[in-house]
Amino acid sequence: MADYRKMWEELGMDLETHDQLCEVLPQAFGDVYLSQENRPESMDYYNMVVADIHGIRPAELVAAQKTGTKVFGTFCVYVPDEVIVASGAIATGLCGGSQFWVPGGEKVLPTNTCPLIKASVGARLDATCPFFRIADMYIGETTCDGKKKAWEILGEDVPIHVMDLPQMKRAKDIKAWEDEILTLKDVVEKETGNTVTFESLKDSIELINNKRRALERLYNLRKNENVPISGRDVLLISQIAFYDDPGRFTQMTNKLCDELEKRVQDGVSVCQSGDKRIMITGTPMAVPNWKLHQIIETTGGIVVCEETCTGTRYFEHLVDENSNTFEGQVEALAERYMNINCACFTPNEGRIEDILRLAKEYKVDGIIDVNLKFCNLYDTEGYLVERGMREANIPVLGIETDYTDSDASQLRTRIGAFMEMLR
Amino acid sequence: MADYRKMWEELGMDLETHDQLCEVLPQAFGDVYLSQENRPESMDYYNMVVADIHGIRPAELVAAQKTGTKVFGTFCVYVPDEVIVASGAIATGLCGGSQFWVPGGEKVLPTNTCPLIKASVGARLDATCPFFRIADMYIGETTCDGKKKAWEILGEDVPIHVMDLPQMKRAKDIKAWEDEILTLKDVVEKETGNTVTFESLKDSIELINNKRRALERLYNLRKNENVPISGRDVLLISQIAFYDDPGRFTQMTNKLCDELEKRVQDGVSVCQSGDKRIMITGTPMAVPNWKLHQIIETTGGIVVCEETCTGTRYFEHLVDENSNTFEGQVEALAERYMNINCACFTPNEGRIEDILRLAKEYKVDGIIDVNLKFCNLYDTEGYLVERGMREANIPVLGIETDYTDSDASQLRTRIGAFMEMLR
Ligand code: SF4
Ligand code: SF4
Ligand code: SF4
Ligand code: SF4
Repeated sequence: MADYRKMWEELGMDLETHDQLCEVLPQAFGDVYLSQENRPESMDYYNMVVADIHGIRPAELVAAQKTGTKVFGTFCVYVPDEVIVASGAIATGLCGGSQFWVPGGEKVLPTNTCPLIKASVGARLDATCPFFRIADMYIGETTCDGKKKAWEILGEDVPIHVMDLPQMKRAKDIKAWEDEILTLKDVVEKETGNTVTFESLKDSIELINNKRRALERLYNLRKNENVPISGRDVLLISQIAFYDDPGRFTQMTNKLCDELEKRVQDGVSVCQSGDKRIMITGTPMAVPNWKLHQIIETTGGIVVCEETCTGTRYFEHLVDENSNTFEGQVEALAERYMNINCACFTPNEGRIEDILRLAKEYKVDGIIDVNLKFCNLYDTEGYLVERGMREANIPVLGIETDYTDSDASQLRTRIGAFMEMLR
Repeated sequence: MADYRKMWEELGMDLETHDQLCEVLPQAFGDVYLSQENRPESMDYYNMVVADIHGIRPAELVAAQKTGTKVFGTFCVYVPDEVIVASGAIATGLCGGSQFWVPGGEKVLPTNTCPLIKASVGARLDATCPFFRIADMYIGETTCDGKKKAWEILGEDVPIHVMDLPQMKRAKDIKAWEDEILTLKDVVEKETGNTVTFESLKDSIELINNKRRALERLYNLRKNENVPISGRDVLLISQIAFYDDPGRFTQMTNKLCDELEKRVQDGVSVCQSGDKRIMITGTPMAVPNWKLHQIIETTGGIVVCEETCTGTRYFEHLVDENSNTFEGQVEALAERYMNINCACFTPNEGRIEDILRLAKEYKVDGIIDVNLKFCNLYDTEGYLVERGMREANIPVLGIETDYTDSDASQLRTRIGAFMEMLR
């Protein structure tokens, strides 16, 4: 492992505290990932990226900044990376997925806030994550109460531009999102000094669509009877998609898919016969939150699909690439993004339809609907999701959890019982 | 007390369960209200209204419905009563303030939801509140996560129209609210079969403004050294303002103010010398939530102002009455309502300025910032409120509570200590 201490120091990080994080991560990663048998060889790339997650990619971002490139940090799959990339800047996901950062967030936020928000705020304020230090500007959104208010506190420490996501999906709301995308364009143009043109946006739309195509290819391979890759591994790949250089990520993911296609032809599977095909629905799982996948895949299950923002909500639906005008491109962006079905919308029936469709496509035996503690949106919607699944005779288990390990054995019992029931 | 059982039965209410509520309310009201000494005589009217809260006013609403009048139920001070009234309909507040209804809400909503929302949903689904049964249609809004999602579940049981409140306060957001007000006009016109005209809107703007003027007059009287009315009593009046006939309410409140003005002239006060002047800031207190006022006013405090939606946020700022066109009226409505500073906006600096201003105007000795448990918006903003007050050297105590009585003695201890500190 290269020595990144100097970089971290220059980023103003709290090295001593950060060392504690660096000490525990490899162990956690080893337990969840390296213990797996029969992993695809092409996972090497992702292993490397995550093993040096606070080193390799941050160093690239810092190097880019030295040549004048700006870095924007985002927290939600509604924020269009295309606009950021089209201004010559880099977009990087910033959602915190570790309990390590939660106490830092709780210094300024209510305990009754979802761990994703607390960890994100803590990672910034405690200066223990290089990505949070590197970003020149954060792009927030008005999706949920917790984030809406957290921007006000984070905004005292780092420049934030907040996009006002409509709360419904009428025609005028899609227009309103178009307008927010145009405002984002103005903001990134001002910050970068570059102009977002028809040509640069055309390129970035293609670039990000290609990332989506690669992820879709990967997900399609999981639909096979013989599942060629574990859910854990796909989760890791999805998480890295938020941080990595999009071109390289697409290339490496397509390379992995080549290997997986061969596996499918050869009948190679990572699961045992009798393993139950599980879909996870609900709240996002930011790196390094691998808890639920790990439990499911060590209690007789294999995760074949995630209807989450670190899953299908991230890559489904392409942006139309055939717009002939800049206005048309922005319209196409608004339409694609407003097609995502997050529980922050009211109503959000499209999501139930998505889950029913995915359950068929991925031939799932059961659904685990997971909620990050204190996420009121997905928690309330979970009532409708679970009812919808019961009506369709799809077994469903509702789980509420956070980033701590304190409920691990209880979850293992409940999920184990669910697997037994599916037999 | 008249016998309203037949009406309740015809409203499809669960009479047996409702009887339990009817049994406890008079006792609670007696303890908090009738035990007070030296109450203004004009409180008789409000005593009567609340003593028969599920009888008198519901009977009026039912009688009006029999002549073809429609009743709309609302949950938020952003929803403009003026438009409803201008269509010949009646608007009534529906927020639930009793623990009695919470378990009913918890059948379909997460426990981690604010009690106001749980009580409101429970009151409807358990059929134990006549107002929730009477309303022909509910008007919801997209203010907080909990309400946003609760409409989807309530909407399966009763027609709901949801207004999309913008999450920010830029010029285009005020325009967007104008548009939502126009949509509300269409909705009430369709439901009532009447047209909202320039004339009818002019009348209703005046009617509701007069209610605001009466409440402002009442609040202004509390600014006197000799406080002529208890905080409890004013809270009750504010709560009744949401339910009562606006014209009659205005008249009765002005009559009360006449009496209070006389008290001020005569130096009559409801408090003891040495009582500390307290302002409450934060989440709304729906009827019969009198818990905090009761504790404060029996531990050496007198509540002189509520910066809440059952307080200043309800009546401050008038709608401009000088518009010459219908469009101008709608614009004036949008401007007045978007002037309210609720924590659901990001950012919401105006609220801190409001609190600082009110603290001066009402010469408060200390502030109690109260948060309904699981209201993430006011809880997060509380961090900024408390910091702002400390910077201005105004003593502040942050309290989180719900509708149960389980924390009453703990609150009494904490609030008592705060009063001691103010001495
Ligand atoms: S769950 Fe909703 S708010 Fe959270 S990242 Fe996904 S789309 Fe955004
Ligand atoms: S999980 Fe829920 S509460 Fe947490 S950031 Fe996402 S939408 Fe907000
Ligand atoms: S606190 Fe906010 S959401 Fe609640 S009633 Fe008041 S304005 Fe509406
Ligand atoms: S108190 Fe907070 S959570 Fe409850 S209804 Fe009002 S804004 Fe929503």
